[in-house]
Amino acid sequence: MSSLDALPIRDDLRGKSPYGAPQKVVPVALNVNENTHPIPEDVAHDIVTALARAVLGVNRYPDREFTELRISLAGYLGHGLSADHIWAANGSNEVLQQVLQAFGGPGRSVLGFSPTYSMYPLLAAGTGTRWISAERDADYEISPETASAAVRRENPDVVILCSPNNPTGTPLGLDTIEAVYNATDGIVVVDEAYFEFAPEGTPSALSLLEGRDRLLVSRTMSKAFAFAGARVGYLAAAPAVTDALRLVRLPYHLSALTQAAAIAALAHSGEMLAMVDDIKHQRDRISTGLADLGFRPYRSHSNFVLFGGVDDPAALFDALLERGVLIRDIGLPNQMRVSAGTEAETTAFLDAIAAVSSNS
Amino acid sequence: MSSLDALPIRDDLRGKSPYGAPQKVVPVALNVNENTHPIPEDVAHDIVTALARAVLGVNRYPDREFTELRISLAGYLGHGLSADHIWAANGSNEVLQQVLQAFGGPGRSVLGFSPTYSMYPLLAAGTGTRWISAERDADYEISPETASAAVRRENPDVVILCSPNNPTGTPLGLDTIEAVYNATDGIVVVDEAYFEFAPEGTPSALSLLEGRDRLLVSRTMSKAFAFAGARVGYLAAAPAVTDALRLVRLPYHLSALTQAAAIAALAHSGEMLAMVDDIKHQRDRISTGLADLGFRPYRSHSNFVLFGGVDDPAALFDALLERGVLIRDIGLPNQMRVSAGTEAETTAFLDAIAAVSSNS
Repeated sequence: MSSLDALPIRDDLRGKSPYGAPQKVVPVALNVNENTHPIPEDVAHDIVTALARAVLGVNRYPDREFTELRISLAGYLGHGLSADHIWAANGSNEVLQQVLQAFGGPGRSVLGFSPTYSMYPLLAAGTGTRWISAERDADYEISPETASAAVRRENPDVVILCSPNNPTGTPLGLDTIEAVYNATDGIVVVDEAYFEFAPEGTPSALSLLEGRDRLLVSRTMSKAFAFAGARVGYLAAAPAVTDALRLVRLPYHLSALTQAAAIAALAHSGEMLAMVDDIKHQRDRISTGLADLGFRPYRSHSNFVLFGGVDDPAALFDALLERGVLIRDIGLPNQMRVSAGTEAETTAFLDAIAAVSSNS
Repeated sequence: MSSLDALPIRDDLRGKSPYGAPQKVVPVALNVNENTHPIPEDVAHDIVTALARAVLGVNRYPDREFTELRISLAGYLGHGLSADHIWAANGSNEVLQQVLQAFGGPGRSVLGFSPTYSMYPLLAAGTGTRWISAERDADYEISPETASAAVRRENPDVVILCSPNNPTGTPLGLDTIEAVYNATDGIVVVDEAYFEFAPEGTPSALSLLEGRDRLLVSRTMSKAFAFAGARVGYLAAAPAVTDALRLVRLPYHLSALTQAAAIAALAHSGEMLAMVDDIKHQRDRISTGLADLGFRPYRSHSNFVLFGGVDDPAALFDALLERGVLIRDIGLPNQMRVSAGTEAETTAFLDAIAAVSSNS
């Protein structure tokens, strides 16, 4: 029996464990910020029709430039963007990996504000980019002053701002993004994976793109478009940025199936975003319900809620799992994270945590 | 208007151009070694059915371990392999990128025998691995002595052997693979992307896996399975190797659609491989036809033929393109490469090149 230690793997990988949120089969899975609403039937029908067409030509390589998908994404984002401004890959993880391959890498650094998306340091390690962790203000907020001071002090090659932030849900003001941009000559990535769950009228960093060639705004179809299984992340930026990413992407990285499915889903953006409104409503129910039970939910612009006031996160995790509800212990002391589900799932979570809390 | 030069991209990327075989719409495209046979109708039907099922759950993340796909691939490969030995990713380019992330990278090197697959040096550059180009014997063959001498001299961390080789089609004996393995303590990758096109009875490097924990055999569904558009590459190796790849892969890197489509196609491997027999027949027609015209085709175990004796490759490229036939000028002096198509496409190519040759 061979072992990993006997293989000539890179020294910096020795002793590491792969990323792994548990993939358990439970009645109510609210642990990885999925959109728990299945795709509406008419949208699913159109997606399957598009896939059937794509299968007929799947013996050929896909469009390496995924032109039609970029046109669809530009149309969805608005803000005067055209296909030239758009890039996409297999999930926003791959988009961010490509950004670090082009603008980070050995001898370079990337700065983020912890706690933040746990993949950032892993993507940094995977591309040989030094990860710099900067601190947030109280309640996980980041003021323009705090952000620009950290960026001036550390002088990173890339800054990544998660807005709203995962795992805390915290929104980020455009003033902070502008302050960071002005404090660096490097690349500034704003990861808006959860942006569609922000309150109506919240301005996107997309509105800052004009005239800022080093600003990249990444998004995903995993959340608002209920497309986590299809793996479609994307970004908007100056056309020169997409040219830089062409230098590091693997040729034909986006399959013909992925392109077809995403284009079909984007044609139904109105209907997909209607689900988002329901999820926002469920998120607000969670915040209110948790506060009523004496927990301390943080301000959230995302499809999940981080809450404090948990005496024993591991015990709460187990007690809820026993009731068929899976949430996430993200390793922050006395805090846990729960994704907003359908109305029924959200009720199941609130009932379960109420029962568990009154027991203790 | 922003330009790439104005952006803070990595210095080693400055002035580079992205990989790019031309994607032209022509009646007879025989330039990128695609399988030009569309998927049989009954197989396409089963794939679409599987995709329709997958779309229903696409709001959830895919199986991160793609367990069912690994079981299917192990079953297809045989050789006593189980799912533990199998890894897969979005095309064999991504598989090889992950191998270099785990076993190559900064301060390490990868050796290949030129001319070989043009992506190897690009994958090396993208992962910060030093690329070492070693020489072949006459007619692009590699003897055990030539191979092991190069490996002993250069002492690379990874050796990659393309078998049969792209762009030359040249087969590689198991004796050469064994000699390379014995000459190094590093990783040895045998890229069998085109293996299914070898003559009946040709032994695969899979037969060498037992007891060789540093040997990796990669394959693709792009060619034999007519799945270039679906992007499915894979490899077989010791289970510890797949554990190493789990440390560098992006979580959920294989979409639910990719997994479903590949599993459905693998269930029809018998029917898919029947197409391969026809392609081998067309390849042999090309070799014979080119020889009859006075060109010099090299020995090929793949779905394409490299041929010498071309006075002016650029002129031949243009003359064929004018007749609606696209082949590949891969930059080797007086040589060109053509993929075997359907019977009609192959006839179109042979007729066109006969017409062009008699004109000159």
